[in-house]
Amino acid sequence: MFPVRVTTLTTGVVGTLLAALPADRVLLDDDVLASYRHDEAEWAPSGRPLAVVRPREAREVQAVVRACLEHRVPLVTRGAGTGLSGGANAVDGCVVVSTEAMREIRVIDPVERYAVVQPGVVNDDLRAACAAQGLWYPPDPASAPWSTIGGNVATNAGGLCCVKYGVTRDYVLELEVVTGTGELVRLGRRTAKGVVGYDLVGLMVGSEGTLGVVTEVTVRLRPARPAERTVVGYFASVVDAGRAVEAIGAAGIVPSALELVDRHCLAAVDAWKNMGLSVDADVVLLGRTDAPGEAGDAEAAGMLRCFEDAGATWAAASTDAEEAEALFSARRLAYPAVERLGPVLTEDVCVPKAAVPEMLARIEAAARRNDVLIANIAHAGDGNLHPLLITPPGDDAARERAQVAFTEIMADAVDLGGTVTGEHGVGLLKRSGLALEQSAAVVAMQRAVKAALDPHGILNPGKVLPDEVPA
Amino acid sequence: MFPVRVTTLTTGVVGTLLAALPADRVLLDDDVLASYRHDEAEWAPSGRPLAVVRPREAREVQAVVRACLEHRVPLVTRGAGTGLSGGANAVDGCVVVSTEAMREIRVIDPVERYAVVQPGVVNDDLRAACAAQGLWYPPDPASAPWSTIGGNVATNAGGLCCVKYGVTRDYVLELEVVTGTGELVRLGRRTAKGVVGYDLVGLMVGSEGTLGVVTEVTVRLRPARPAERTVVGYFASVVDAGRAVEAIGAAGIVPSALELVDRHCLAAVDAWKNMGLSVDADVVLLGRTDAPGEAGDAEAAGMLRCFEDAGATWAAASTDAEEAEALFSARRLAYPAVERLGPVLTEDVCVPKAAVPEMLARIEAAARRNDVLIANIAHAGDGNLHPLLITPPGDDAARERAQVAFTEIMADAVDLGGTVTGEHGVGLLKRSGLALEQSAAVVAMQRAVKAALDPHGILNPGKVLPDEVPA
Repeated sequence: MFPVRVTTLTTGVVGTLLAALPADRVLLDDDVLASYRHDEAEWAPSGRPLAVVRPREAREVQAVVRACLEHRVPLVTRGAGTGLSGGANAVDGCVVVSTEAMREIRVIDPVERYAVVQPGVVNDDLRAACAAQGLWYPPDPASAPWSTIGGNVATNAGGLCCVKYGVTRDYVLELEVVTGTGELVRLGRRTAKGVVGYDLVGLMVGSEGTLGVVTEVTVRLRPARPAERTVVGYFASVVDAGRAVEAIGAAGIVPSALELVDRHCLAAVDAWKNMGLSVDADVVLLGRTDAPGEAGDAEAAGMLRCFEDAGATWAAASTDAEEAEALFSARRLAYPAVERLGPVLTEDVCVPKAAVPEMLARIEAAARRNDVLIANIAHAGDGNLHPLLITPPGDDAARERAQVAFTEIMADAVDLGGTVTGEHGVGLLKRSGLALEQSAAVVAMQRAVKAALDPHGILNPGKVLPDEVPA
Repeated sequence: MFPVRVTTLTTGVVGTLLAALPADRVLLDDDVLASYRHDEAEWAPSGRPLAVVRPREAREVQAVVRACLEHRVPLVTRGAGTGLSGGANAVDGCVVVSTEAMREIRVIDPVERYAVVQPGVVNDDLRAACAAQGLWYPPDPASAPWSTIGGNVATNAGGLCCVKYGVTRDYVLELEVVTGTGELVRLGRRTAKGVVGYDLVGLMVGSEGTLGVVTEVTVRLRPARPAERTVVGYFASVVDAGRAVEAIGAAGIVPSALELVDRHCLAAVDAWKNMGLSVDADVVLLGRTDAPGEAGDAEAAGMLRCFEDAGATWAAASTDAEEAEALFSARRLAYPAVERLGPVLTEDVCVPKAAVPEMLARIEAAARRNDVLIANIAHAGDGNLHPLLITPPGDDAARERAQVAFTEIMADAVDLGGTVTGEHGVGLLKRSGLALEQSAAVVAMQRAVKAALDPHGILNPGKVLPDEVPA
């Protein structure tokens, strides 16, 4: 098909896009469009885009936003599509902007300690480039081998090391953004500090593409850190494991990771990768410390003591780096491994550390009550739990029961002083959870901010905020 | 005077306040009102308040906001009045809300590691209460003995340790706020992570009372840290000192403080406190590390090497904790000491670390060009410089020259890729600087956010954002 002919025949937003952009940026093939309908949120609804655009640079993104503004067409931005809440799902008749062709690492500055990247750069690629210069970009979601910095910014992604080093928002210094009115702007600053005006960078981070389209990201870096020591504990019950997590906090230890993996996840990883990890325990805790020298020895010994005092059936400080890495790989592979068993609904509740045992008990109760298999992985040191609700393929009744359990677990988290989403974002799946967690007055503030920065309502409509209830 | 009689006679917002609040909350005496006109920004304009209110709790603050809404009267919130940008200055006919009677530390939770405080709690008081439980609240502006947590939140205050530990925003988890529409809401969460909706907490932090009135603050805490080691270096020129700062960054060292004090400041502190600190050097650098054990020894040795390689005329790792503390006290006292010499205009520019020598040279040039005495203190490790423009009392011509230099220094900072305010806020003094630093499109976004959250424009009007230029 000749692009010129398409241009001639095509009216509406697609015509404007084809006129404004090089032809290879705009994808219109039905099968291709179908492959951009949704992210990894299994059960969130998705629609059919009119077009997918793969821009290479900011001015091209701006052209797309302006085309959508002109035709009042919704615009949905997506990175690698690894999101777990449906935040990047298409709506019928929208334009999807995929950042996959925006993969340039533009600057890595070892003195100022920042990197400037296009939004489509994959997290692990940035981390590798930084490591080559003795630098470190901490945020490490389990999706790091696939997910993009732009997607991480959109969801304010966390990860394993954020128990000590914070989340994506803590690292974003500056953003280049196309606004809801089609302007290309720079927000924030590259200096270590800065308080000029409102924190629009912080506002954009975690806004899931509803307030602007990010075209460049400047992130703060840290110097490379010392090698980590790993401590492993097996526990006969989630309650014991929860007590170990609480004891570590009370001891003033700040681990560089403190992960929980249950036997369902280990079995699923074993079934897939044959790593020989399945253990005769209900729950495994994986602790790490990157404190240097003797301080690291002391922290590792302290964690081990907390594991043992909480009733670990087996615990040891790993002396074998390969074995430790295998356990952490299993943690990272847990989600895709479990997905092989059937459709998965992923929770992301975060509760106070002291409430972790109670929350895990309530998750077990929800599983029993609704006859749903729930596997657990958790950033236990943060109180951020990822119950994975697994249903047999094609079993609609099980899906319905899982959805009931999903809602109950969100309510339990709020009841325990927690939040319905620690790091995955609201997307589509947790909009009712947002309304549960925040008062009507706060939701009204959110809506006011959205209306202020996206006055025409074209940016990822229907995400994050709950539907307005007519008065 | 009988409160009842006042109520009867007083109409307008004062009448509403007296009817809604216990009588001792509302101050109307002329001399008292005059003492609440302005913060410590010497030259920012200020007006006369109609009333000063000292509420004790959130519901009382809400009553004040609602009274101001009813009468469309501006409301200016202030903490201890130690601000340096005029952000808390009264405007004619406003109501000033002082948080000085809201001093309760409500919770210090050692397991979850957070504290819940009323906004009028003094920074050092919170730090002391945390220390008693083996915990640490890092943000440490030089004003910590006097300034309040609410004021620190309003300006997103930094301090000495933020070169390693970040600024106030990095520690605020949850805020209770009275909004611009008079609602009492809770924003954010107390869990370690959370991404429900837009980051309204981050938006409030640093908004200088223009988006809401904070009535309670929940801050993240850290475990107490190891004792610091101090390294001191004397330099014959600011350029040499700047090179030392750059070398420390390039060596991958993250000091827990890296402060610059020039001879003007040391002499001023000596003249006041007779501490015997004046030295035969143009500039002193004070470095600190709190890395534990051998790692700390290595970092201190590394800083010392950087000082020496950059041409320090004298440098040593301090073995005397008292001497080290005296030097840091001198740093903290520099501002009030210099203020004794005459009216001071305080800059707060922040530039890339590599630009620190050039920025210091430009500040010297501005001093010479405008015949103004400029003393320098700086959070050198952050590139955050505080040139102090000192004028003789009563010398109007010198004041005018200082204002020219002030504006030139802001422009130089922006020219070098920096910002006009690293940690003091825009207030009144840097509104023109904001317009210099941010594009018209970004300023429009700021205005849109302000209008969304303060639709009636009663919250600290005229601060932060530049005046709108009629089209």
